[in-house]
Amino acid sequence: MNSLKEVKNFVHNGQKEYLPHISIDSVIFGYNNQQLKILLLKWKGLDGWGLPGGFIKRQEPLSEAANRILQEKTSLSNLFLQQFGVFGDSPYRVKGRNPKDYREKFGLEVDEDNWLLERTLSIGYFALVDYSKVNVRTDFFTEDYHWCDVNEVPELLFDQNEVVEKALLTLRLQIYHQPIGFNLLPEKFTLPEIHTLYETILGKELDQRNFCKKLLTLGLIKKLEERRNIGPHRAPYLYQFEKQAYEDALKEGVVHTY
Amino acid sequence: MNSLKEVKNFVHNGQKEYLPHISIDSVIFGYNNQQLKILLLKWKGLDGWGLPGGFIKRQEPLSEAANRILQEKTSLSNLFLQQFGVFGDSPYRVKGRNPKDYREKFGLEVDEDNWLLERTLSIGYFALVDYSKVNVRTDFFTEDYHWCDVNEVPELLFDQNEVVEKALLTLRLQIYHQPIGFNLLPEKFTLPEIHTLYETILGKELDQRNFCKKLLTLGLIKKLEERRNIGPHRAPYLYQFEKQAYEDALKEGVVHTY
Repeated sequence: MNSLKEVKNFVHNGQKEYLPHISIDSVIFGYNNQQLKILLLKWKGLDGWGLPGGFIKRQEPLSEAANRILQEKTSLSNLFLQQFGVFGDSPYRVKGRNPKDYREKFGLEVDEDNWLLERTLSIGYFALVDYSKVNVRTDFFTEDYHWCDVNEVPELLFDQNEVVEKALLTLRLQIYHQPIGFNLLPEKFTLPEIHTLYETILGKELDQRNFCKKLLTLGLIKKLEERRNIGPHRAPYLYQFEKQAYEDALKEGVVHTY
Repeated sequence: MNSLKEVKNFVHNGQKEYLPHISIDSVIFGYNNQQLKILLLKWKGLDGWGLPGGFIKRQEPLSEAANRILQEKTSLSNLFLQQFGVFGDSPYRVKGRNPKDYREKFGLEVDEDNWLLERTLSIGYFALVDYSKVNVRTDFFTEDYHWCDVNEVPELLFDQNEVVEKALLTLRLQIYHQPIGFNLLPEKFTLPEIHTLYETILGKELDQRNFCKKLLTLGLIKKLEERRNIGPHRAPYLYQFEKQAYEDALKEGVVHTY
């Protein structure tokens, strides 16, 4: 949505194409070089940062909508997108919005009964990507973007700090139940590589020997008969995710950690 | 909602009081005497069983709505209610419904543009209760209820088998992160009592010694200097949940199991 004509059509007729009352907020975690970041967009007119998001088309399955929105903002498709909650408790999610916001901030005239002013609950989805590979697209409503360190998230619009916190908590809770690192590590990786990834996501140090022993004991990764040459006398063994074991673990619940 | 007048008002004017397009489905797990069940309601006219549920009032915070609906159906309040997903992918959740359903099944005339016929996504919440303490209330739309063993759930209406499966998976995944048993065990319990509860919820046998040792090591329960007399020469020690430890564990993610 880039031209003023498209935007006006969305504002005035969007309820014909999209469901009112429900939107999607995307928390896109980016990992690269031992840093975990999230994608923030700067909204034109609003003096602040927020999450990418959008609405669900009237006949569109929910998970397709989440994927479409992610693709529109980042050009990425076929990512593992994880639903982590519906937000409908904060004052921003209980009351509707004000026509003044649209007039003053975007220069758009909006009637009192416009669909965008109605109460809108938000469904949170997160994805984990390599941020060096993402092309972020801004549009009419957004003027800038920023990959922000998860430890330095500023005050966001609406209830979106709560959304980010819940996403991070869910990511961390699921790190041993989902093959989270699949698309962040090479297909064959070394133990220090996966150790660093998990430390970064969890935001804390993990004893390397215990961590690796546990992943092997749980059967979540397996050792290959293959090494990577990284220098004279340095050729660490390579490992691979056991995708099936992760899937079984997920079905069984966390009991496998006992 | 019991009288025909109330029901007609709900069908024809409900969209003034409730948000359209979003409903809540409640999966109410009941534990008693080593059995785990779920509450099903039999819908009048529809030849089948389904979950209790309802709509969100226009100015009502989402979690209040979930609690109100639970209370309306079971007379229980202040329970730990856990959101576990939004369902919007199955054909039942992408398309709307047919006016014929209302006419034939409930004897209600409904216009083609009635709010109840529109596409409706569903937000799932679960709770865990002692089913011997619940008074289930049926209403105009429902004619019977049944506490059904989780292993014997019949084919449910719409996409509700998927909803039940996701609820059970989430319950099992969270059993070591949330003090799930709080309201199912006495304040002070024996090790066999908590062992049986967890085995029942997980639907599998757990080695008793390892299980109890792990709960103690994780600091999720603590041993009291107190015993229960249950017979001659039989006085097992009593234990208590460490609620704070669970809360910390939840904040930290599952890393504490390492």
